[in-house]
Amino acid sequence: MERIRTTAIPTHTGEQVRIAGWLHSWRQMGGIHFLVIRDGWGTIQAVAETSEEIAPLVESGATFESIIAVEGRVVKEVQAPGGAELHDLHIEVITPVREAPPVPLNKRKLTTGLSTLLDHAPITDRHPSRRAVLRLASGVMSGFRRVLDGRGFTEIATPKIVAAATESGANVFQLDYFGRPAYLAQSPQFYKQIMVGVFERVYEVGPVFRAEEHDTARHLNEYVSLDMEMGFIENHFTIMAVLRDVLASILDTLHEQYEAELELLRVAMPIVPEQIPHVHFAEAQEWIYRTHGVDVRGEPDLSPQDERWLGQWAQQEYGSDFLYVTGYPMRKRPFYTYPDPERPEYSNSFDLLFRGTELVTGGQRLHRYEDYVAALEKAHLPMEPFAYYLEAFRYGMPPHGGFAIGSERLLMQLLGVPNVRLTTAFPRDIMRLVP
Amino acid sequence: MERIRTTAIPTHTGEQVRIAGWLHSWRQMGGIHFLVIRDGWGTIQAVAETSEEIAPLVESGATFESIIAVEGRVVKEVQAPGGAELHDLHIEVITPVREAPPVPLNKRKLTTGLSTLLDHAPITDRHPSRRAVLRLASGVMSGFRRVLDGRGFTEIATPKIVAAATESGANVFQLDYFGRPAYLAQSPQFYKQIMVGVFERVYEVGPVFRAEEHDTARHLNEYVSLDMEMGFIENHFTIMAVLRDVLASILDTLHEQYEAELELLRVAMPIVPEQIPHVHFAEAQEWIYRTHGVDVRGEPDLSPQDERWLGQWAQQEYGSDFLYVTGYPMRKRPFYTYPDPERPEYSNSFDLLFRGTELVTGGQRLHRYEDYVAALEKAHLPMEPFAYYLEAFRYGMPPHGGFAIGSERLLMQLLGVPNVRLTTAFPRDIMRLVP
Repeated sequence: MERIRTTAIPTHTGEQVRIAGWLHSWRQMGGIHFLVIRDGWGTIQAVAETSEEIAPLVESGATFESIIAVEGRVVKEVQAPGGAELHDLHIEVITPVREAPPVPLNKRKLTTGLSTLLDHAPITDRHPSRRAVLRLASGVMSGFRRVLDGRGFTEIATPKIVAAATESGANVFQLDYFGRPAYLAQSPQFYKQIMVGVFERVYEVGPVFRAEEHDTARHLNEYVSLDMEMGFIENHFTIMAVLRDVLASILDTLHEQYEAELELLRVAMPIVPEQIPHVHFAEAQEWIYRTHGVDVRGEPDLSPQDERWLGQWAQQEYGSDFLYVTGYPMRKRPFYTYPDPERPEYSNSFDLLFRGTELVTGGQRLHRYEDYVAALEKAHLPMEPFAYYLEAFRYGMPPHGGFAIGSERLLMQLLGVPNVRLTTAFPRDIMRLVP
Repeated sequence: MERIRTTAIPTHTGEQVRIAGWLHSWRQMGGIHFLVIRDGWGTIQAVAETSEEIAPLVESGATFESIIAVEGRVVKEVQAPGGAELHDLHIEVITPVREAPPVPLNKRKLTTGLSTLLDHAPITDRHPSRRAVLRLASGVMSGFRRVLDGRGFTEIATPKIVAAATESGANVFQLDYFGRPAYLAQSPQFYKQIMVGVFERVYEVGPVFRAEEHDTARHLNEYVSLDMEMGFIENHFTIMAVLRDVLASILDTLHEQYEAELELLRVAMPIVPEQIPHVHFAEAQEWIYRTHGVDVRGEPDLSPQDERWLGQWAQQEYGSDFLYVTGYPMRKRPFYTYPDPERPEYSNSFDLLFRGTELVTGGQRLHRYEDYVAALEKAHLPMEPFAYYLEAFRYGMPPHGGFAIGSERLLMQLLGVPNVRLTTAFPRDIMRLVP
């Protein structure tokens, strides 16, 4: 008999079906056995009322996480999860497991500490709550691609082994490339800009590597970056409008295709307003001074406290979880940042705050060759390692810009997960290389 | 006026439009200037019949690859590429370029040698023929995802920095991970198998890294691997059936969404038969002996010549460009390979040959913990570095298998490109780390 998915069971009431999966739980009450079988998509309850039915499990000594196939009749049962269960079972043990897993998977919550949970990720990732988060991680990538595919963007895959650090030498992993030093890409920044010269509109979903020694709840040393870059823009506001739609598409995708996961996690997803409110960096500092009495004017960046205040203001003033802060000072932005033509000490860049925390950084980039030469000089950076990058600008580049979203951090903030390590199957941090 | 794409021009006959892009070519014939403007999607001809119209270009000294915007009236012109061109031009120079690019981009073919072409990839990738290939690379990824998304697969992103080599220590890049040695993932093999324990069906599109010292037309040291793995299979034939559909989906996607690129490259795409023929490794050797008189029986692998003979046979016998060879000897397959239950010296694995060259490798994997312990022992491999991987099998895994497609090599063979380096924007080989 053809196997069906557990999630399809409710549509087969009265029929004989076959399912297969992991023995998720097994309770006994007055001679009746309640099994829950988990497959790649969901779970279903199977009820064995006789010792003959349960015999294959008992005789093989199979316990939780054993791989079993179950044939049975689908019975409507309001009390059962999903509204249906299997009766009159024929059980087949495919891969028996005879010892309990290191962390119990059949409680509603994973109660283990973070470190044990991550040590045993190959098992704990199976827990329905973990699985839901990891599935949403896939939905984030898919929602990102969906909107950009629809707007003529081309997906690119740029090299992760590079000859020189992208942004600064400080947080770069070094490797041995056939006897020469090489580095892991901290971002696809240079390559995605170059590819604007080829396709105008590009995106990449790929790993980036940061050798930062931070050991915080918000940092990973390897993460998935959702990068986009596009040409022929007016200024950074063009990019901000696309980012607004990208976020809306990600949230739409989660609602349309991952409702079961959102329900299981009981998450209230934010709503992306049609127009995300924006405030200029200098105005934001003035407002903080006026409203909170703290004089941060002249500071080159916003503090976490500043961002929280601004987040509250966006909520009160506009009912928005999102706020753009634009025009960060040039001296805190990378050398390729485009200055504000009216006030060149400020930049055509932005941060997107979500509930008072920075979520995305982006902006307009320089596009004229002479501007790059001057910018590198001003930053006391040598030309030579950037020669290949500069070539793109030497031979014609349009006004362009883009942004990068840290996929795990986005999911962390959307779900309100306390640690970014919980948004990925196998996190990498300063201490953790395994599993 | 809102800018439109060059590819949209033919639907705007008689209208006034605005386009923007790179000045691709500029010819003058008897006082008339023929400009070709290239944007991210195509090219369009613009004809300037007066010196006033062309003045902005002449006065700024702008030449090829300058970024310009052109307003004009769309005129049907059978002789023009695309069947339409712009007249009565108003030209605006956005980013003037005053020196010729290192490689001319406005000839139909890029005539430069491979090394120069790759050295100047930021520019040569702009050439329509290069751009078409790179766009098809995006189509390959998209076609791969499309079919698997439709079959309940979950996309995963597994770590690229790992604590130990996956398959063997021989071709692995080593890096410095906060003072400890670490390695770049040679494949997501272990992680995708572990994730079968979570989602049953998973795929990944991501970079893999091979420190092979080969300097051939077929090898890259970093490439995009299209990986899939699925549980609850019958045996390797289940995987082969999915691979057939994946290839068909990739080709369908190219035909549906990338016809312009295929036309430009004048490629005749193969047809994937409903059933790809298959032959067992041992039978293949017997057939080679009988037909070509070369006794390869007992050899643990097929030679390139063997593969070519088999490819010809598949073509003659079945009219198929594709042929599965199944049952490769266990001793040439990795330790996690599932043996043929009837003939345990052979494996439940396969190679897919395309026109006589290996294209994809896959098969069924071991799924019982005891089998892994025995296999590692037999291969004289230590248990400890595999502890996290073994944990998945210790706590219940179904029969499963999968395959990996080298994305660049697939495209190389589909297009008949002579060197795999030409299928990617910024190739990495033993000599090349830049651009």
